[in-house]
Amino acid sequence: MIVTLLTDFGDRDGFVGAMRGVVLSRAPGATLVDLAHHVPRGDVAKASRVLARAAPYFPPGTVHLVVVDPGVGSARRALAVEAAGMRFVAPDNGVLEPFLTGARVHAVSPGPLLPPARGSTFHGRDVFAPIAGALAGGVALERIGPRVGDPVRAPAAAPARAADGRFVGRVVEVDRFGNLITDLPAEGFAAGCELHIGDARLAGPAPCYAAVEPGALAVVVGSEGTLEVAVRDGSAAERLGLTAGAPVACASAPGGPSSAR
Amino acid sequence: MIVTLLTDFGDRDGFVGAMRGVVLSRAPGATLVDLAHHVPRGDVAKASRVLARAAPYFPPGTVHLVVVDPGVGSARRALAVEAAGMRFVAPDNGVLEPFLTGARVHAVSPGPLLPPARGSTFHGRDVFAPIAGALAGGVALERIGPRVGDPVRAPAAAPARAADGRFVGRVVEVDRFGNLITDLPAEGFAAGCELHIGDARLAGPAPCYAAVEPGALAVVVGSEGTLEVAVRDGSAAERLGLTAGAPVACASAPGGPSSAR
Amino acid sequence: MIVTLLTDFGDRDGFVGAMRGVVLSRAPGATLVDLAHHVPRGDVAKASRVLARAAPYFPPGTVHLVVVDPGVGSARRALAVEAAGMRFVAPDNGVLEPFLTGARVHAVSPGPLLPPARGSTFHGRDVFAPIAGALAGGVALERIGPRVGDPVRAPAAAPARAADGRFVGRVVEVDRFGNLITDLPAEGFAAGCELHIGDARLAGPAPCYAAVEPGALAVVVGSEGTLEVAVRDGSAAERLGLTAGAPVACASAPGGPSSAR
Repeated sequence: MIVTLLTDFGDRDGFVGAMRGVVLSRAPGATLVDLAHHVPRGDVAKASRVLARAAPYFPPGTVHLVVVDPGVGSARRALAVEAAGMRFVAPDNGVLEPFLTGARVHAVSPGPLLPPARGSTFHGRDVFAPIAGALAGGVALERIGPRVGDPVRAPAAAPARAADGRFVGRVVEVDRFGNLITDLPAEGFAAGCELHIGDARLAGPAPCYAAVEPGALAVVVGSEGTLEVAVRDGSAAERLGLTAGAPVACASAPGGPSSAR
Repeated sequence: MIVTLLTDFGDRDGFVGAMRGVVLSRAPGATLVDLAHHVPRGDVAKASRVLARAAPYFPPGTVHLVVVDPGVGSARRALAVEAAGMRFVAPDNGVLEPFLTGARVHAVSPGPLLPPARGSTFHGRDVFAPIAGALAGGVALERIGPRVGDPVRAPAAAPARAADGRFVGRVVEVDRFGNLITDLPAEGFAAGCELHIGDARLAGPAPCYAAVEPGALAVVVGSEGTLEVAVRDGSAAERLGLTAGAPVACASAPGGPSSAR
Repeated sequence: MIVTLLTDFGDRDGFVGAMRGVVLSRAPGATLVDLAHHVPRGDVAKASRVLARAAPYFPPGTVHLVVVDPGVGSARRALAVEAAGMRFVAPDNGVLEPFLTGARVHAVSPGPLLPPARGSTFHGRDVFAPIAGALAGGVALERIGPRVGDPVRAPAAAPARAADGRFVGRVVEVDRFGNLITDLPAEGFAAGCELHIGDARLAGPAPCYAAVEPGALAVVVGSEGTLEVAVRDGSAAERLGLTAGAPVACASAPGGPSSAR
């Protein structure tokens, strides 16, 4: 059985190490796989996107253990979810949004599957890893706790047509390379259009990162089928001074395709 | 058989990669698990705390391979240790302190289990990984080298009552989030007390990180049962300008609990 | 079957996580092992050195999956290679240089082993991981694509005797600790010689890092048998202001061994 781990715990304190031990103690022989551990601290939206990016590529039955949990120790619930043929264990803070529609959602409740409480700061070790280990070890979802119908949702705003005719979306993520990933579908970006983002007006898309000069801004079709703004061998986020949430728009270029200015 | 790895080698040079290959070549089928690899360079005390945090959660028989080794190539010994139902392989520099009391300690000696020496800078690959792989592959501790009775110890100072009546301890660790982990047991922090740390005087503990305002200092009960000083969505280490070793004290608050000032 | 992964994707976006899912979906039961993921962005030469450092320690049959690929989406080919009893999957950009002499090299071609194209930016997921998974799952190299005889080579310059009699080489890599790894073989550094690097003139080698004073520059014999310049508890790269490519030379010291000045 595969158990993936996704956290904002980094790789210097042993927090993920302790969680790995808990899972392996409950599910001997489990295959542990990392999705990412340097998610920016407490960035639930980013974690949600990482999960959406990676989880679909795993085999049916995989258990995905997600701990990006700024509300640890508060009244927020812990969830165990079955969706898309896989299982998910995570705080009830919207991080599972991409998989919640049509999912079976259970709230973790105290019981023999959980160790005695050991403080309020490390539910990754004390709540989420034990439940993930139990699921990986064959425990049924029903035994984790009662089914609930009201998980916290975090629906993303969809790109929309603005009054001036432009198709307006947002930067939804900045990756390690400083690429600005937008929610504008690539198929909406026809020839003769330009992308408005920060101070830049960009034609495109370019066929690949290497198709533009080093240091140049480019629009490319990203790996999830949306438009992405990149600087070859550089950071578009730094160049444009933008981060997640920044507006982007597709517009008809005056007189056809234009280049960056 | 599980083999954990704990180093300060980071994730960019392939040093840990080479060690993983050595272990898997000697113990085919071993399950490799990371405790942490971004321990600050040469920080033996930090590595010791990471090990204490994570190792106890692993199943009996696990081999823990620890290479934070500023004395590599010098006369310091390499140790193979059995303690708490597990095995540990590490330099003799105190990093195994949390597990040494009552342990069986053997010094690694040259022999057929070790490859020919290949320089003096990478004993992770040339000494510790081969020994960990041998243990994981079923070699008995006795075959690693002679039993020794004098491993380097690194006992921590215990919190103590000061002349002025305050209970005085130390910051023992700063985690990735800038939380200041102290050695003051949580149960000693009664209502009506306050925590003195740097310029701050703090009441508490708060029930969880999220119970205080964003940006506020808080005392919480950390995941090992000691007091921890945090800034919600921020870094207490930066806020207070403190690092490991800084003194902290519990004192009766004048007139009862007070808040941060 | 072991599949190693070596990328410049870091650990925050889930790119490596998606690749791990693809490999495990095609080769259930494979053992995934990380070589490194924080290779500096697009640094093919560094990735090549990491691979040379770690790959030889793995058992025969291991599949090494390497994705440091600044030309992703361009006309550069994807390769599947058999060499040294192992398999390698990587872009055709010279990253496999250490293993290409005498290797069987095949170019990945479209076919049933590859999923439908999904953009031009993430061949780690769409091309390299599926091929690595196929090889790990038992697919023969011949089925990946046609054999080719002209992979991109990236031979390193060899150290050479200069007109003034000095033996001249280069810094070939800077590691996480700021150590400057050179291509000068340690055996060429006899007593009575000194190493010229940047502004420094160094005698040596020192028997180990700890043999010099904290903060002092030292020459040591590195883990691949070449000379390495280090600062104890510090960074030689920062101290000397040097990076990969900087020239180094061995020369007879005037009047015998000298120390750092």
